[in-house]
Amino acid sequence: MDRVLRVNVKKGEVIFEGVKEDYRFLGGRGLTSKMVLDEVRPDCDPLGEFNKLIIAPGLLGGTAVSSTGRISIGCKSPLTNGIKEANSGGLAGTYLARAGIKALILEGVPDEGKLYILEVDDDGARLVSGEDLRGLGTYETLSKLYAKYGKDVAVICIGPAGEMRLRGASIAVSDPNGELKFAARGGVGAAMGSKGVKAIVIKPPKGSVSYYDRDGFLELARKINKELLDDPKTGDAYKKYGTAQIVNAVNAIGALPTLNFRYGAFEHAKNLSGEILYENVVKRGGEGRTGVTCMPGCVIMCGNVYPDENGRKIVSTLQYETIALVGSNLGFDNLDSVARLNREINDLGLDTIEMGGVLGVAIDAGLARFGDEKSCMALLGEIRRGSVLGKVLGNGVKITGEVLGVSRVPIAKGQGIPGYDPRSLKGNGVLYATSPMGADHTAGNAFGSRNEVNPLSRDKQGDLSRNLQIKITALECLGFCIFARPPLFKNPQVMADLLYYRYGVKFTVDQVWEMGINTLKAEREFNKKAGVSPAQDKLAEFFYTEPLPPTNAVFDVPEEEMKKAIIE
Amino acid sequence: MDRVLRVNVKKGEVIFEGVKEDYRFLGGRGLTSKMVLDEVRPDCDPLGEFNKLIIAPGLLGGTAVSSTGRISIGCKSPLTNGIKEANSGGLAGTYLARAGIKALILEGVPDEGKLYILEVDDDGARLVSGEDLRGLGTYETLSKLYAKYGKDVAVICIGPAGEMRLRGASIAVSDPNGELKFAARGGVGAAMGSKGVKAIVIKPPKGSVSYYDRDGFLELARKINKELLDDPKTGDAYKKYGTAQIVNAVNAIGALPTLNFRYGAFEHAKNLSGEILYENVVKRGGEGRTGVTCMPGCVIMCGNVYPDENGRKIVSTLQYETIALVGSNLGFDNLDSVARLNREINDLGLDTIEMGGVLGVAIDAGLARFGDEKSCMALLGEIRRGSVLGKVLGNGVKITGEVLGVSRVPIAKGQGIPGYDPRSLKGNGVLYATSPMGADHTAGNAFGSRNEVNPLSRDKQGDLSRNLQIKITALECLGFCIFARPPLFKNPQVMADLLYYRYGVKFTVDQVWEMGINTLKAEREFNKKAGVSPAQDKLAEFFYTEPLPPTNAVFDVPEEEMKKAIIE
Repeated sequence: MDRVLRVNVKKGEVIFEGVKEDYRFLGGRGLTSKMVLDEVRPDCDPLGEFNKLIIAPGLLGGTAVSSTGRISIGCKSPLTNGIKEANSGGLAGTYLARAGIKALILEGVPDEGKLYILEVDDDGARLVSGEDLRGLGTYETLSKLYAKYGKDVAVICIGPAGEMRLRGASIAVSDPNGELKFAARGGVGAAMGSKGVKAIVIKPPKGSVSYYDRDGFLELARKINKELLDDPKTGDAYKKYGTAQIVNAVNAIGALPTLNFRYGAFEHAKNLSGEILYENVVKRGGEGRTGVTCMPGCVIMCGNVYPDENGRKIVSTLQYETIALVGSNLGFDNLDSVARLNREINDLGLDTIEMGGVLGVAIDAGLARFGDEKSCMALLGEIRRGSVLGKVLGNGVKITGEVLGVSRVPIAKGQGIPGYDPRSLKGNGVLYATSPMGADHTAGNAFGSRNEVNPLSRDKQGDLSRNLQIKITALECLGFCIFARPPLFKNPQVMADLLYYRYGVKFTVDQVWEMGINTLKAEREFNKKAGVSPAQDKLAEFFYTEPLPPTNAVFDVPEEEMKKAIIE
Repeated sequence: MDRVLRVNVKKGEVIFEGVKEDYRFLGGRGLTSKMVLDEVRPDCDPLGEFNKLIIAPGLLGGTAVSSTGRISIGCKSPLTNGIKEANSGGLAGTYLARAGIKALILEGVPDEGKLYILEVDDDGARLVSGEDLRGLGTYETLSKLYAKYGKDVAVICIGPAGEMRLRGASIAVSDPNGELKFAARGGVGAAMGSKGVKAIVIKPPKGSVSYYDRDGFLELARKINKELLDDPKTGDAYKKYGTAQIVNAVNAIGALPTLNFRYGAFEHAKNLSGEILYENVVKRGGEGRTGVTCMPGCVIMCGNVYPDENGRKIVSTLQYETIALVGSNLGFDNLDSVARLNREINDLGLDTIEMGGVLGVAIDAGLARFGDEKSCMALLGEIRRGSVLGKVLGNGVKITGEVLGVSRVPIAKGQGIPGYDPRSLKGNGVLYATSPMGADHTAGNAFGSRNEVNPLSRDKQGDLSRNLQIKITALECLGFCIFARPPLFKNPQVMADLLYYRYGVKFTVDQVWEMGINTLKAEREFNKKAGVSPAQDKLAEFFYTEPLPPTNAVFDVPEEEMKKAIIE
């Protein structure tokens, strides 16, 4: 029987509730966004008593089909002041789904100075002291929790940045290998920190998800998994190169953020590529690995363990967005530096995209140097120390730019721009400006469509982005990783069928896409009420005025075209 | 013949243009706001190339009627991202009106590192180097400009804060006594700094304003001036106590900001009162004075020169808002400390209201102590040094609260709350939330109406605020100081008559009020386009949830009532 777990950190109260009829066929981002719209005052202080942090697996979470274990984390964003959903791989989505917990809600604010661990198991849930984890990095937090609860638990936790309620803070989610994945964007970690919850520990549930037609589901799941394995990209390239497989291609179209978004191509891009990543892993051996999975049953396995020259793990997983924002954007010509900075950002519990943007702006302000690991690491040290400078940086790109007086501040709607410069990939410019999530590539990345729609064209970007936003959001309602999209987009009926086999309710393909549409509508409604008005559907000014070498493009998609992407 | 002086700091170009027919009967805030709406891209970076700084005297500027020499300074606010008009006394309004310059526009951004002085005289206008003024405080800037141009010029200048483009920066305007008045709010000084203009120097024009009916005007002016002199408040109390005359009264209704807006009454309020100010001036002698005028021909003379114990000037003019925000709000029990901090804030070219709010928040963050002048002065020293902490503080209350992680951050719509806590003077809560200017008491202060509408009542505040906002805005279109309102509100026909004698065009009283209405509409239209949506018509959350001793009121005016105050 599905339940909602409601945790009031002010009262120290933990309640299991039934699921409202309205929410029965909502999951993942669809559920977190609808609940945020229904329960959170849009005008509230995102770090105050009226915000809520809502965690939900997808509708297909915990099932046997590949890549459905994503966990959605939603709230009013402390970074953008609009609605936010950030999702992550790891174990938590699968465990919550198996435990029949459709949503976990943290609400209220704790009494001054309280820090909790929320334990969830088959006997119920409870808040216990998290005092011995105070100030710890995410990695040490995880290892202490493993020592206390065993290595088979799923952990959702924050680092020092989340405890300090810094708006660049992420939420870490443990995976089957004992590594950390991140629901990184929008400052969700600051929202969790404001609830005084250092970690949520979910013990492995005894139960598993039920199926209306188990055999039907398993047969279709096998078919989809096989399609993923047969596709050269999802079957092979991800396993070798991970998401870094696109470095050269993004560089080739002139959209690779370079030296604080001054250039769209980087002379050392090749050194940062997935091919070099793979080569290093193979050459260096030791703990290094590629083809690592982050969710039970995922056949794509895009993860890696990136080793140093002696084969000792630096970080897992080194990904494209980090390579772009912390690599080329900061002028690093080698993956080792990127990996070390990545590890430090992870440990602080910060978003690597936001922090790459922050460090780029800080470099422009003269506080560090491009390609200089030591000066960048020193700035991250300021964040850990909680100095005033550290607080500025940890609060994200926008505040850093405002305080340091820098004019090239790569943001849209308050959030740092991810690894695709919107001037050379205009579909993503439309996305960053119009998505209720702001500058978030995961909400409908147009890079994969670069052969259908010219990334430099002013036309067709609106419809392209609209379409992508709807479809990706629908996937996120089901709990699917967006990398699993090829077989799903090719034959969307399989999603309807999976829902039927799982729940015994017939869905049409249109109804599946409607999950995306309805979610986007709910999000936009929340944003309007929160004061994030349509007039804010813009990128930072320099994207419109400063041509980007080598394409020398500016962002110039006409307003009429932009409007096509808006779902309301 | 009226002209518009347009200065493009990028091109170094200075052009005199004719006045558009539409603008002929606009002046002051009415003109700056309409021009900002017409000429400034609402979505622009307020510190970038597309913002403009527009300076305009009122329609009655330079005339013989008392208190009409205010100068309006408008732009897109770097602090609130909405439209801003801040006005000031001093000589500039009178000089520009006499020179027939209806508006002065600064546009573009200068080449990197350029700093200019704009000279304006009867021969024209020109940009010259301001390099020798770089980094200077406002007082030294003024004295250097007096040395160069003579003491009869009118100066409009910025301090180090404006040069650093800090969002709390003000614009200083010289007065007939060689003292500085301030167009303080909304970060207008940062906008001027972004134009690379350190100072505007206006030499005394040979001409004077023309009248359609000179005798009629002068007779009516004498009548109004006499009424002002016969009124005990404008005729006498302002001359002795200045604006500080209300300290005890605001304290009595429990609306005096105290210890970062924790309390509405201060045990040492009496020590900060206008009576003590007057007593100190009389007792200490020397340079101390009250009854000082800030504009040619003003009979109210609310200014003062506040002396130290040895009779040496500390600051001129020590005013109510500074006493509230820098005094009781920071726990100071004596005017001398307030005056010294005031002088330093003035010299930096910052807004005392914003900085009082900032220091209160910084004290809550543990960076200084209530009632401790040294630690507060040290924080102002950080701003002067341009340290990262200084930049945080200089950027205003909102950013300071966000960076330092403080939850009691007294703002509305991005701007620091002035000297009337909105919980105990609810009409001002309505004003701060609904005015296009955000938290700006000058846009329609309800304190003067406390005997008509109970300040604690949830009712009637909407209509009260609406009415005040319209009337005050109309006064600001004419160039009137709001302190001159008693005879004008009693018999509004005199304003229509003054316009007739000045311009030969018949206005009805309704048409005078319509100037206010149309201005407010233009401002709200700009804000909507700029993304400052109606959903942002709110105060900081703690005003709604934290009862304010001694009234123990929260801000609880219902939304329906709030809406009545909105002019659109």
